Amino acid sequence: MKIALAQLNYHVGNFEANTQKIIAAILNAERQNAELVVFSELCICGYPARDFLEFDDFIAQCTNALNEIAKHTLKIAALVGCPRKNPEKQGKDLYNSAFFLYQGEVKHITDKTLLPTYDIFDEYRYFEPNKKFEAINFKGQKLAITICEDIWNVGNDNPLYTICPMDELIKQSPDMIINLSASPFSYTQHEDRLKVIRANVSQYNVPMVYVNQVGAQTELIFDGGSVVVNEKGEIAEQLPFFSEELRIAEVEEIRNSKLETQNSKPQVELIYSALVLGIHDYFSKLGFKKAILGLSGGIDSALVLCLAVEALGKENVMSLLLPSGFSTEHSLADAKKLCENLGTKYETVPIENNFQSFIQTLHPFFKDLPFNVAEENLQARVRGVLLMAFSNKFGYILLNTTNKSEAAVGYGTLYGDMCGGLAVLGDVYKTQVYEIANYINRNGEVIPLDIISKAPSAELRPNQKDSDSLPEYDVLDKILFQYIEKRQGPKELVAMGFEKKLVDRVLKMVNGSEWKRNQAPPILRVSPKAFGMGRRMNIEGKYLG
Amino acid sequence: MKIALAQLNYHVGNFEANTQKIIAAILNAERQNAELVVFSELCICGYPARDFLEFDDFIAQCTNALNEIAKHTLKIAALVGCPRKNPEKQGKDLYNSAFFLYQGEVKHITDKTLLPTYDIFDEYRYFEPNKKFEAINFKGQKLAITICEDIWNVGNDNPLYTICPMDELIKQSPDMIINLSASPFSYTQHEDRLKVIRANVSQYNVPMVYVNQVGAQTELIFDGGSVVVNEKGEIAEQLPFFSEELRIAEVEEIRNSKLETQNSKPQVELIYSALVLGIHDYFSKLGFKKAILGLSGGIDSALVLCLAVEALGKENVMSLLLPSGFSTEHSLADAKKLCENLGTKYETVPIENNFQSFIQTLHPFFKDLPFNVAEENLQARVRGVLLMAFSNKFGYILLNTTNKSEAAVGYGTLYGDMCGGLAVLGDVYKTQVYEIANYINRNGEVIPLDIISKAPSAELRPNQKDSDSLPEYDVLDKILFQYIEKRQGPKELVAMGFEKKLVDRVLKMVNGSEWKRNQAPPILRVSPKAFGMGRRMNIEGKYLG
Repeated sequence: MKIALAQLNYHVGNFEANTQKIIAAILNAERQNAELVVFSELCICGYPARDFLEFDDFIAQCTNALNEIAKHTLKIAALVGCPRKNPEKQGKDLYNSAFFLYQGEVKHITDKTLLPTYDIFDEYRYFEPNKKFEAINFKGQKLAITICEDIWNVGNDNPLYTICPMDELIKQSPDMIINLSASPFSYTQHEDRLKVIRANVSQYNVPMVYVNQVGAQTELIFDGGSVVVNEKGEIAEQLPFFSEELRIAEVEEIRNSKLETQNSKPQVELIYSALVLGIHDYFSKLGFKKAILGLSGGIDSALVLCLAVEALGKENVMSLLLPSGFSTEHSLADAKKLCENLGTKYETVPIENNFQSFIQTLHPFFKDLPFNVAEENLQARVRGVLLMAFSNKFGYILLNTTNKSEAAVGYGTLYGDMCGGLAVLGDVYKTQVYEIANYINRNGEVIPLDIISKAPSAELRPNQKDSDSLPEYDVLDKILFQYIEKRQGPKELVAMGFEKKLVDRVLKMVNGSEWKRNQAPPILRVSPKAFGMGRRMNIEGKYLG
Repeated sequence: MKIALAQLNYHVGNFEANTQKIIAAILNAERQNAELVVFSELCICGYPARDFLEFDDFIAQCTNALNEIAKHTLKIAALVGCPRKNPEKQGKDLYNSAFFLYQGEVKHITDKTLLPTYDIFDEYRYFEPNKKFEAINFKGQKLAITICEDIWNVGNDNPLYTICPMDELIKQSPDMIINLSASPFSYTQHEDRLKVIRANVSQYNVPMVYVNQVGAQTELIFDGGSVVVNEKGEIAEQLPFFSEELRIAEVEEIRNSKLETQNSKPQVELIYSALVLGIHDYFSKLGFKKAILGLSGGIDSALVLCLAVEALGKENVMSLLLPSGFSTEHSLADAKKLCENLGTKYETVPIENNFQSFIQTLHPFFKDLPFNVAEENLQARVRGVLLMAFSNKFGYILLNTTNKSEAAVGYGTLYGDMCGGLAVLGDVYKTQVYEIANYINRNGEVIPLDIISKAPSAELRPNQKDSDSLPEYDVLDKILFQYIEKRQGPKELVAMGFEKKLVDRVLKMVNGSEWKRNQAPPILRVSPKAFGMGRRMNIEGKYLG
């Protein structure tokens, strides 16, 4: 039997586009003599549809799309992810379901059992968990259908769950496991995912066809990487990461077809690709083409420019150089050199006149009070106003260049350098920013070396350095990683060898900046714990603050 | 038996303050000869503690506080809400628990069964549901302990749940139900809550002691209103709304003590009180004293000023009048009159010079392109910069004055009038803004009548009116209410009699403004469906957009 894996990029709520894309893939698979085509979780509406799912009208549109798609399954079967109304009065309103379509109609429905409700996942907010298990017979093959998290409890070893769908389904002696996923990227997720797939085929001794969604949905980046793994745990088919593909797998050949083991790509390359896709899809799905950003001569904005040029094309990215009286000559020169290296447009717009105009307006009130954070922030906000004026006048979307270290400790100006439609580096620590910059320069200088080698500075007062206010980034990032990603507390951090005073100071900065992050743009998620929808904190809370 | 109801205002994560407050209430109750004092849900850490709960160190601090509190229960028993580690490997890491403390130790633990996971609630993100039911014997009384949502499934009539805690507990013939709650305010919640309490006492024929948290936690405002209801459904004790109190109830007298039926307060008064408490606690819990806002002469900023003066004291609120070339004389005069009526400080800071300075800087790029939204937003952003400069220089917190109608349709400037630490009116429709303004004027003019009677205008271009870009608010608000609060779709709205073209236009504006609301300040929640943590939408989604 030939099975097609349809790894596609859906647009949440865009039923017309998603339906056409799914139908085109069905027809394409049929032309290639596939007998079954497998799509990803909730592909009809896109994942995550979030609170759209609470609208009856939205669910009705899902059902309409499903019926339309079913018409194209006269000769080929299709497994399609779609929410459905819970027919019982009892329980949550919806199931997260996989519809087996064939001969133009719904032949079977599998509902999702394990509903992730942690980090970025909110599935128990919407869905009732399944409790019935039935494998499907199709053309002499018995198929165990599972949806994403359903395979993340192997032999009931996952303490989060008390039910193990595959322990139930294996009793019916299926010939293979099929999994419809919407599993978002993080730099550890690819390995975790392959580990889980291999644990399943090893535990249950059947091959698995695993189809993941690809494409970014605001913060969340889905990396695809769909795969067929035989019962020996060998990879029989590997679909690409970060791009769409329809691939035909021949079931009879799975057992013996083994791809050469690929060296998995270095994390830096994965993160680079994820960020590029994240920018690309934010623009394409919102219907925008052109980006703008403020180029300071520092490494963060330099990296964002490179990523934006890769994602949108050099003709669609505009940089503003916005020097103040505290900007250094070399910053300006470095920024220009970068634009020239990339062949992108830039304009220089000195902010001194606008800054001085505010200083004059404020003088009757500020009088002779010393220059402080008010004047520092004022410069950043004048830049924000100018960037947004270009955005409004010419239809550019402003890219935010704040990195995760800065976002963590609140080192940035709200309504100033924290402006933007999308925070490209908000989940990338400063030390990782350097790694990606070096990766971009791997075949020669794109980012001027001066930008990489100089000491980081906000240039908001004379001779300012980040290290005046913050610990060195190599220490800071280690503490932040342990606190944010690993949720270690102050005692554990001190036990790891970090100085207590420093730990207390950093944790206080992190918890005390919640109000600022609350108004930050959405952040492209590349780590297992990003600021944003997956980390829900109390603004007025006093913990370690 | 004498039971004390401790309706207190907790600070999330502030273990020292919460512990001292709880111990003081225990001592106070003991002095009044109470034998049991009942606190509210998760009072030790405050509710909602959100992702702080994922830190082992945070849970350890909860346990330390609990042990400290237990020492003060030698002669009096206390029911205290506190998270606890799930001792089993299987399931979520925590239980949401009520600890029965007596004779200096933990005598009994009741875990929460029903875990709300909808709207603003995320409890299944953190907690394992309880499955064991055991009433407590204390001094000849059998007590059925329940936690908040546990009583919201009466006789298993709530389709969300399959277990009914009171159906289980009633088998043990308890003498009364005790409920520890953290039930946030909305303008319908008080009536819903009393209905549920009465349904319980009627169904199970036992009285209920219901203790709710009071005080605001950023967006969420807890209104207290703790109550003792006898088995006839009569209110035997009623604690105040929106303030702390310790009240002693005599169990033997509950059956026959019936308060005169109180006319419930009008919604407008409840919303007013909630907003005042919301402002007050945002400032007190974050350690701030002084507020600033931009006063336009319009009704939204006028109302925010009145609320802020009530919450913080007139000496702690500063208004900036920020006229542009398009501001009318009467707006300025109205704004000044309001400040004089309230006896609050204001300064007039014309924005024309700063605005023109930007126009000059931008001229080489904008050339002779017509005045449009870029210049409109520029004025709003100059105001934002000036307000934030005052905030940074003098330590004021900026109050945002956007109302729910504007927030819904995206009628506002990001980084301009959308700036602020707290959005006071973000859950109050424009038509409700007028109602509250009239309520404030109920004993005479506080808000000048001109402010209430004139047509709303952003005054960002000559003779601008809100009605140039938006439907009239009385129609707009009705459509918004049906779409946002009631989740009605376009077909249902048309069936209600709204014009299809208008419905499509409004829904498109709402869904197309998600990116803007995503960067809005936290919004004080007063309705059953507020923008913010209880409404989780997809920015790049295309549904009705």
